[in-house]
Amino acid sequence: MRASRFLFATLRETPNDAEVISHQLMLRAGMIRKLASGLYTWLPMGVRVLNKVEAIVREEMDRAGSLQVLMPVTQPASLWEESGRYVQYGPELLRFKDRHANDFVLGPTHEEVITDLARNELKSYKQLPANFYQVQTKFRDEIRPRFGVMRSREFIMKDAYSFHADQASLQETYDNMYEAYCKIFTRLGLNFRPVQADTGSIGGSGSHEFHVLASSGEDDIAFSTKSDYAANVEMAEAVLTGERAAPAKALEIVDTPNQKTIEDVSAFLKTDPAQSVKALLVQGVAEEGKTAPIVALFLRGDHQLNEIKAEKHPLIAAPLAFTTEAQLAELGLTAGFCGPQGLAEKGITVIADRAASVLSDFVAGANEVDKHAVGVNWERDAKFTEVFDLRNVVEGDPSPDGKGTLQIKRGIEVGHIFQLGKKYSEALGCKVLGEDGKPMVVTMGCYGIGVTRVVASAIEQNFDEKGIIWPANIAPFEVAIVPMNAHKSPKTLEAAEALYAELSAAGYDVLLDDRNERPGVKFSDLELTGIPHRIVIGEKGLDAGTFEYKGRRDAESVNLSKEELWAKIAK
Amino acid sequence: MRASRFLFATLRETPNDAEVISHQLMLRAGMIRKLASGLYTWLPMGVRVLNKVEAIVREEMDRAGSLQVLMPVTQPASLWEESGRYVQYGPELLRFKDRHANDFVLGPTHEEVITDLARNELKSYKQLPANFYQVQTKFRDEIRPRFGVMRSREFIMKDAYSFHADQASLQETYDNMYEAYCKIFTRLGLNFRPVQADTGSIGGSGSHEFHVLASSGEDDIAFSTKSDYAANVEMAEAVLTGERAAPAKALEIVDTPNQKTIEDVSAFLKTDPAQSVKALLVQGVAEEGKTAPIVALFLRGDHQLNEIKAEKHPLIAAPLAFTTEAQLAELGLTAGFCGPQGLAEKGITVIADRAASVLSDFVAGANEVDKHAVGVNWERDAKFTEVFDLRNVVEGDPSPDGKGTLQIKRGIEVGHIFQLGKKYSEALGCKVLGEDGKPMVVTMGCYGIGVTRVVASAIEQNFDEKGIIWPANIAPFEVAIVPMNAHKSPKTLEAAEALYAELSAAGYDVLLDDRNERPGVKFSDLELTGIPHRIVIGEKGLDAGTFEYKGRRDAESVNLSKEELWAKIAK
Repeated sequence: MRASRFLFATLRETPNDAEVISHQLMLRAGMIRKLASGLYTWLPMGVRVLNKVEAIVREEMDRAGSLQVLMPVTQPASLWEESGRYVQYGPELLRFKDRHANDFVLGPTHEEVITDLARNELKSYKQLPANFYQVQTKFRDEIRPRFGVMRSREFIMKDAYSFHADQASLQETYDNMYEAYCKIFTRLGLNFRPVQADTGSIGGSGSHEFHVLASSGEDDIAFSTKSDYAANVEMAEAVLTGERAAPAKALEIVDTPNQKTIEDVSAFLKTDPAQSVKALLVQGVAEEGKTAPIVALFLRGDHQLNEIKAEKHPLIAAPLAFTTEAQLAELGLTAGFCGPQGLAEKGITVIADRAASVLSDFVAGANEVDKHAVGVNWERDAKFTEVFDLRNVVEGDPSPDGKGTLQIKRGIEVGHIFQLGKKYSEALGCKVLGEDGKPMVVTMGCYGIGVTRVVASAIEQNFDEKGIIWPANIAPFEVAIVPMNAHKSPKTLEAAEALYAELSAAGYDVLLDDRNERPGVKFSDLELTGIPHRIVIGEKGLDAGTFEYKGRRDAESVNLSKEELWAKIAK
Repeated sequence: MRASRFLFATLRETPNDAEVISHQLMLRAGMIRKLASGLYTWLPMGVRVLNKVEAIVREEMDRAGSLQVLMPVTQPASLWEESGRYVQYGPELLRFKDRHANDFVLGPTHEEVITDLARNELKSYKQLPANFYQVQTKFRDEIRPRFGVMRSREFIMKDAYSFHADQASLQETYDNMYEAYCKIFTRLGLNFRPVQADTGSIGGSGSHEFHVLASSGEDDIAFSTKSDYAANVEMAEAVLTGERAAPAKALEIVDTPNQKTIEDVSAFLKTDPAQSVKALLVQGVAEEGKTAPIVALFLRGDHQLNEIKAEKHPLIAAPLAFTTEAQLAELGLTAGFCGPQGLAEKGITVIADRAASVLSDFVAGANEVDKHAVGVNWERDAKFTEVFDLRNVVEGDPSPDGKGTLQIKRGIEVGHIFQLGKKYSEALGCKVLGEDGKPMVVTMGCYGIGVTRVVASAIEQNFDEKGIIWPANIAPFEVAIVPMNAHKSPKTLEAAEALYAELSAAGYDVLLDDRNERPGVKFSDLELTGIPHRIVIGEKGLDAGTFEYKGRRDAESVNLSKEELWAKIAK
C-alpha cells in the first residue's frame, strides 16, 4: 500500500472523551471514529487489524474442526421467550418490532438461534459431537458504553456452540477449544492467561476465561509463579496453610475508644491486622415460614470476603445479605465490636475462614462497645462450627495446585469457553435419538472471542508514549519504507520502490510512505500507528549500501546491510 | 474436509414454500435455513460459497484502490433526518429506539454514515479522490420477503462510496469501478451484462446495473448481438429506422363491430398489427391554475409504451396519468376508437412514436364507436406535433450503437454503480477546501454488490434437474473424492486418503466423502450440492491404475490416468 493512497487519519491531540489508552490510541492512530454512543466506524487502518485478527481466529477454528455458519443479527423474540431470556435479559437486550408488529431482538448472543437450528438439523447421536462457529456482529445496549470498542454497543464476536451426547464428549470438545484458544491468542501475539472462571447464574459445570494481561484490565487474575494455574480472583482457592499454635497468652479485654476500623484498632494496640479477626454477620438460609438465622463469618483482619465463595456455603443465603440492626439487637450483639467468643453458645453458626482458623492469641471484638479482646484463642475462648474458604486470595498465597505462589495481575477478558450443559437444549427441546433409539436432550458448550475487543486489548498491552506497538501478526502493516526527500531525490524513491516491490513479492504487508510530508511527520505517524519495522532509504545509505532500520521497540535506528535487514524482519 | 465431519444437511424433497429454483436448491443442498420471514441462517455448505464470493469481491476492490472500512449496522436517525431520508424512506427502513429512547435505524444502506465520516475526515481537495468500501450486513424490512436470500430482509452487501472534487474525477473512479465489477463477475464465473440503468428519483447522472442473465430474472435486459451495448429495457433507445413511404391508398372508414383490441381489429381486417397505430391519451403538464391539457401518444399496434421514456417528455406530466372519461367526452373523443385524424386541429398535442411515424397506409381508430379508418397517412390525413421515442425496444430492433440488433433476456441485478453527484454531500454539508482555498461541496459515487444475492443468482444461472452446478471459483468444494465400499475395502480408502492429501497440498479445496452411506446417496448429494469434479476410487480402477472421473456437467463418467485426471481438474 502506498501511503499517498491510504487514509492516514492520525490525530496529534488526545481526544477528550477517551479514558483508556486503547481508546485514545485507536482514535489518534485513525483506526476508529465514533458514530454515536457505543457505535464506531472502523477506518482503513483499523479494518486491516480487524481482518488479521478475524483471519487467525477463523483459521484456528477451522483447524479445530468447528464448522462455520452465519446466523442473522436480527432474531425473532419467540425463540427468546422459549429460553426464558426474553424476560430474564435486562434492557441490554435491544427489542424492536418489525413493520408487521412482530417482536424481534438484536442478538447479543446466539444460543437460542443455534439451538433452534440444532433441534431441526440434528436427528441422531451419530451426528454428534457437532461444533459450529460464526464471526458476526452483535449488539448489547450498554447503559453507559465506554472505553471505545472495549465496551461498545455494536461489536464483533466469534461465537461457537457445540452439541454432545454426553458430558465426556463435551469435555473433549471443551479441551479441544481450550487448545484452539491458546493457539489463537498465541498467534495474535498476546500475553494471555486462561483462567478458571465462575459459571455464575448461567449454570453449567466448567468455564475458562481468556484474559489479556494489562494494567488497565477490569478483572483481577491470580496465577502461579511456577505452573500454568490461573483463576479469576473470585474463583481462586485460598488453601489452608500452617497449623494453629497452642495458646500462649491469656484472654484480656482492653479499651479501644473510638477505634473503628481494623487498621485503627491494630495501630492502637500495636499489633498486625493479620493477627486479628473481623466478623461479618450475614443472613443464613431460612426454613420455610421462619425468619432467617444469623451466620457469623470470621476472616483475618487483612483479608477480604469473597462473596461468591460465601454464597456457595449451604447455610448462607444467596444472594449474600448482611444482618439487620434489629437482628443484632435481638441477639445482644454489638455492631463493629463482634468477636467469636460466646456466639456458638447462643446457637449462632460460626464459620471461620481457613486463614482465620489457624490464628492463635489473636485480637477480636469483645462484643461490647469500644472494647476488644486480645489473646483470644479458638477452642479455649471461642468455638467455630466449621472452617471454610471465604476470602479472596492475595499475592504470595500458595498456588492451589501446590506449585509456587500466587501473583495477581489485572486482565481483560477476550475469550470465554463454557460448558452450558442442558440449559438451552432442555428449554428448546433440542433432542436427538440416542444409541438406544430413545430421544435424549443434548449437552452443549459455547465458546466466544470478542474480536473487536481483542484489538483494543492488544493495544492496552502493547504501547508506549509514542503510540501503539503491534504484535507483528496483527499489525496493519508489517514494514514501513520511508524514502528521504522522495520528492526531490528520485534515487531514494526509486530504491524505495524497488524494496517495496521486493518485500511485497516476498509476502510482507508493506507500507511505502510516499506522502509529501516532512520525515518527522511520517516517523511520528508510523510510531503512533505501531508499524513493527521501519526502513528509511536515504542517499547516504544508498551510497554505503545500507538501510536505516528501526524496530518499533528500539530506542535508536541502526544501519544494516541488506542481508542483516532481511534477518531483522524475518517472520 | 472429511464429509463425516461436515454438516450434510441435504433434503430429498423440495420445500413447499420455495418458489424459485435457487431458493429450492439452497434449502435442498443444505446451504441455508429459514429462521423467520426473510431471515436465513447460512449453514456450513452455504458459508463456504459466501466466503469465496466475499474474498473475490474484496480482492478486486482492494486491487482497484478502494479502502476497506466497517460501518455500524445500527445508525442514528439524526443522520437520516439530515439527508431527508428518515421521512422519505418507506416502512422498509426499520426504525427503533434504544434504551435511552434515542431513535436509530437498521442500515439498509450507508450513504449517510459514510458522508458523515467524509465531512469529518476529508479536509482538502488533495485528499480526493477517496474511495471506501465495506462488506456489511444490511437490513431492509421487505413487506413480503421471498425467493430465499434473493429478496431477504437481512442480507450482506459490498457497498462502496467515492468522493471527488469534480465530475471528471468521479467519472474516472466510476470507470475504474466498472472495470473492477467486470473482473469480479468474471472471476465469479457468471454470465453477466453491465447495463445502462435509469437513475430514477435518486438523481445523478450515470448508472449501470450488473445483471446475471437467468430466465428467472425480474428485469428485461436488451443487448446487442454484435457489441457490448446493453441496457435495461426501460432505458434502451428505440432508434428510428426506415423512411415513410408515400401514400398508396385512400382513407376509408370501415365497420369493426365488437372488435376491442388491436389483435381483434387486425384479425378482423386481415392486417398486421404492425400496420396499425394505437392511441394512448395522457395528461399533459398543466399551467398554473389550469386543468391539464390532453396529450395523444400514438404507437405502432404491436409496440408497448415505455412510461419512463414518456415521462421524460417535457409536455407530459410525470408520473404518467391517463385521461379521464370526462376529458375525452369534452373533446368529443371516443375511448377505444381514437385515431390521430383531426386531433391536432382540436389543439391536442399529438406525439408519434418513431416507429409509428414512418408508417403509411395504416389502420387507426375512426374516432367513432365500432369504426376504424384504413389507408390512413400522416400529413395527408393526420398531423403529429412531434416524433419521440416512446416505446420499449423489442428483439430484432437495431442496437442503438449501430452495431447488430437487440436481443432481450431476463437478468438478476447483482451490482449497481451510480454517480450520486451532490445529493448527500449537499444535504450533509460534506465540503473540502478547494484548490482556490474556498470550501466546495464534494461529488460522490456509490457502488454496490449484493453478496448474498450473488450466491442465489449463480444458482439461477447454473443448475439442472440434479441440482446446483457451481462455477469452480465459488463452489463449496472444488473436488469430491468418493472411495467405493470404504468401510469394507481399506485399499480404496487408503488410495482416497492419499489422493485427498495430494490434492489438498496442491491447493485444491477437496471433500473426501468418507461417510458410511451407499454410493448412490453420496453421488446424489454431490450432484445436488454442485461439486464441479467427482473422482470415484474403486478396486478395479486401482488395479488398472485409473480414476473414475465425472465433471458435474458431464453425462457419463470416464476412466482417466492420473495425468489425465490432473489435466481435467487443472485450474
